[in-house]
Amino acid sequence: MRQFSVVQWQALTTLPYFPSFKIPQSDLMNLPDLLDTLAKNSDRHLGELVEWLKIPSISSDTSRRAETAAAADWVAAKLQQAGLATELVPTDGHPMVFAETPAVPGAPVALVYGHYDVQPVEPMDQWHSPPFEPTVRNGNLYARGATDDKGQLLTHVQSVCDWLATGQSLPLQIKFLIEGEEEVGSENLERMLPSLRDRLACDCVVISDSSQYADGQPAITYGLRGIATYELEVNGPSQDLHSGSFGGAVMNPAIALCHLLSSMVDREGRIQIEGFYDDVIELSQAERDAWAELPQSDEAFAKSVGVSELFGEKGFTSDERRWARPTFDINGLQSGHQGEGVKTIIPAAALGKFSFRLVANQDPVKLTAAIERHLQQHAPAGIRYTLKPDHGAPGMLANPQSKFAVAASQAIESAFGVAPVMIREGGSIPIVTRFQDVLGCDCLLMGWGLSDDNTHSPNEKFKIQDYHRGIAASAILWDELGKLSESK
Amino acid sequence: MRQFSVVQWQALTTLPYFPSFKIPQSDLMNLPDLLDTLAKNSDRHLGELVEWLKIPSISSDTSRRAETAAAADWVAAKLQQAGLATELVPTDGHPMVFAETPAVPGAPVALVYGHYDVQPVEPMDQWHSPPFEPTVRNGNLYARGATDDKGQLLTHVQSVCDWLATGQSLPLQIKFLIEGEEEVGSENLERMLPSLRDRLACDCVVISDSSQYADGQPAITYGLRGIATYELEVNGPSQDLHSGSFGGAVMNPAIALCHLLSSMVDREGRIQIEGFYDDVIELSQAERDAWAELPQSDEAFAKSVGVSELFGEKGFTSDERRWARPTFDINGLQSGHQGEGVKTIIPAAALGKFSFRLVANQDPVKLTAAIERHLQQHAPAGIRYTLKPDHGAPGMLANPQSKFAVAASQAIESAFGVAPVMIREGGSIPIVTRFQDVLGCDCLLMGWGLSDDNTHSPNEKFKIQDYHRGIAASAILWDELGKLSESK
Repeated sequence: MRQFSVVQWQALTTLPYFPSFKIPQSDLMNLPDLLDTLAKNSDRHLGELVEWLKIPSISSDTSRRAETAAAADWVAAKLQQAGLATELVPTDGHPMVFAETPAVPGAPVALVYGHYDVQPVEPMDQWHSPPFEPTVRNGNLYARGATDDKGQLLTHVQSVCDWLATGQSLPLQIKFLIEGEEEVGSENLERMLPSLRDRLACDCVVISDSSQYADGQPAITYGLRGIATYELEVNGPSQDLHSGSFGGAVMNPAIALCHLLSSMVDREGRIQIEGFYDDVIELSQAERDAWAELPQSDEAFAKSVGVSELFGEKGFTSDERRWARPTFDINGLQSGHQGEGVKTIIPAAALGKFSFRLVANQDPVKLTAAIERHLQQHAPAGIRYTLKPDHGAPGMLANPQSKFAVAASQAIESAFGVAPVMIREGGSIPIVTRFQDVLGCDCLLMGWGLSDDNTHSPNEKFKIQDYHRGIAASAILWDELGKLSESK
Repeated sequence: MRQFSVVQWQALTTLPYFPSFKIPQSDLMNLPDLLDTLAKNSDRHLGELVEWLKIPSISSDTSRRAETAAAADWVAAKLQQAGLATELVPTDGHPMVFAETPAVPGAPVALVYGHYDVQPVEPMDQWHSPPFEPTVRNGNLYARGATDDKGQLLTHVQSVCDWLATGQSLPLQIKFLIEGEEEVGSENLERMLPSLRDRLACDCVVISDSSQYADGQPAITYGLRGIATYELEVNGPSQDLHSGSFGGAVMNPAIALCHLLSSMVDREGRIQIEGFYDDVIELSQAERDAWAELPQSDEAFAKSVGVSELFGEKGFTSDERRWARPTFDINGLQSGHQGEGVKTIIPAAALGKFSFRLVANQDPVKLTAAIERHLQQHAPAGIRYTLKPDHGAPGMLANPQSKFAVAASQAIESAFGVAPVMIREGGSIPIVTRFQDVLGCDCLLMGWGLSDDNTHSPNEKFKIQDYHRGIAASAILWDELGKLSESK
């Protein structure tokens, strides 16, 4: 079993991890001094992340309840020791951690949102080192939760704690909301959000739970897709039938399922459900032009996922398809005989799991009604079907030129040496749209991860250099946001 | 766990199971005496079937190799003890049992064909009693293989053994060919058949591996459908991908599979593969008229399989669709996430198992080539696919008015009290066509089963009364066939 080695950290962290990029002028803080302090603390920063990652806080695993709570305690203790007013907020599931620095009249309020829970770790045999024994290889820290989201979230915790440790006050109020159920749908937080409105009141939510555009090319994400997931069960005969004795006279539920799912999307990925595109916000030419500038190679992208050719709606680039167009995917199929060899049956039932990614302004509830109409029109006789909507959330679209985005861009450029690109992402973070709606705030998604970090897969990792850069970018962000105070 | 109870058998078999129907005159055997003996042996007949059914001879399951062989040994021992020249013939797969009574110059030779292997038993949780613990309920014997084919085949074994036990010789030579690979395509037998031509030489093959037309209405089957089975695997990305990050830009193998399978058949069951119907022999008006006389109710049929409505090609009755029209069925689907809840992935792969039932004159090899062309025309970019033909066999069509059919009709009417109807069946017994071709013989398909026997499904059963009637009909058949001797 490989053990994390102190020697290795030092070997890594003696490398200068802040290139001498231009550091913005500040009248609030001596930023060069602060960044120097952060650099000196880098071994401790990494050591603390390792400590946190050792706690197997798998929120979906009921046998890990105590460990999941322990991960909440760990970060609560860290924030409390740094002087923040900290509280563990119980929920019907795993607790939330709430912490805040003192209010600063006239200055903006930033709410850092993140989660301490992690995904399950199966399949175990594909991990090269145990998921809860953080291990350094090639400048990366490997562990479940390394990038999603303990590592990324901890950058903001470290910057705030180290800032306060200098003895100087922050130029704005910072609140932390750290939940333990992001990987299981954030249901308790969503439900409690309206009652927490005053407590969480803020101008801007800061979230680091996404990716850079590429290694060395940071990004600010101003759009996320929404999601709507479904199960469709088709039932035919009361049990599997012999396809010789009955084939041709009894509708086959697996054929009905294939026909129904096929009818929802054409061969080019255009969704065929009536009215599906009605509420889609089309891409602006400015966005298309900006994205066209991104260093992108369809060939390299296809190779990275192991396909010979990409695919998608005509008239759109791959980034446009993934970030700004709604899509349909089948996530699972199950029917009849799945074992070795042949079993010539008409299966009694067939199950399809499918999901849509939506763009901002598309309503999952409206979609469910449209799917129900579609099924009524297309279902053949001789079968019954049940559509079970699982969860849905609309997409998010923020202003990429807001004052907060400009501040974040400045902070990232200072720490990474490269100005971030403004992108959208294809995934969904349902709670973000809820923050916009309930708190009426702006959202800043600053991802420190990389697209090959194996989020939700074996061998999750986080590039150690990006952890340290993230801490620096976070500190500079507080300074930049402080400059937006009314008194300035 | 329910155990088979001796008391139950007796309760059932003390009922008179041979009504006093007219028994044909015979100058070869005292038939009333023989039938009386068979009735006295009925408990033993049932006990022996139970014993055989306890052996889990699932030919497709490589872990059941020893049990499959044990089922061959069991029936070989039974035939040998009765005095037949018996041999276990090894194959590249499971062994065949060959046995014969002495030659009778001038008399016809009958070859009884059957199989000792059985279908897989999944889904296990739907069995009301364990598949290999034969259990009596409501006059039926429940077990995997009860009707397909151990129970039906054993009727002929019992009639021959009991006949010989009377000390009298049979009026014709009877050969047995009992294989262990019928449920996996009979490949070894098919391959070896030409080299066994002399040994298997016969005038007529006798097979009981099909159904009566209805409970109490026996049938002789003069036509069977052919079969062609396939696996289609579709591969996309090298591993499951996050449907948010990649959805819309990478072809989803499960969608590709649904589109490909859907493209093979329309919503009314018409197969869409080019040239598919070219070689189909259309039904004669005489057959359609005869079948129209059969007592048939679509409503009752639909109810018996648990569907609200039947389905199929326009312009055909249900019997015509099942017996004389080619069909397409999906037998299994497998892709992506099948567990509880949601996993929003683009699955790396999708697998479909599908099969066609063919009518006589359609060639499975020609079909495979047509499917390959169809896939080439319809497969989307960005996936790879593999079509794996599993097994194929053409259909069979015999003369419903041959002298053997007339003899069989007489024997069945005597034992069941009702003249059999002449029908076709939708299932496939690939080897039958090969027997016709290679041995140049006639074929008699006398099914003792019922259409709701759950062949290939959980809760397979065989009506105990029909087992005993089958034994009697078999004995009378030997007598009737003996009357066809040259010397008569």
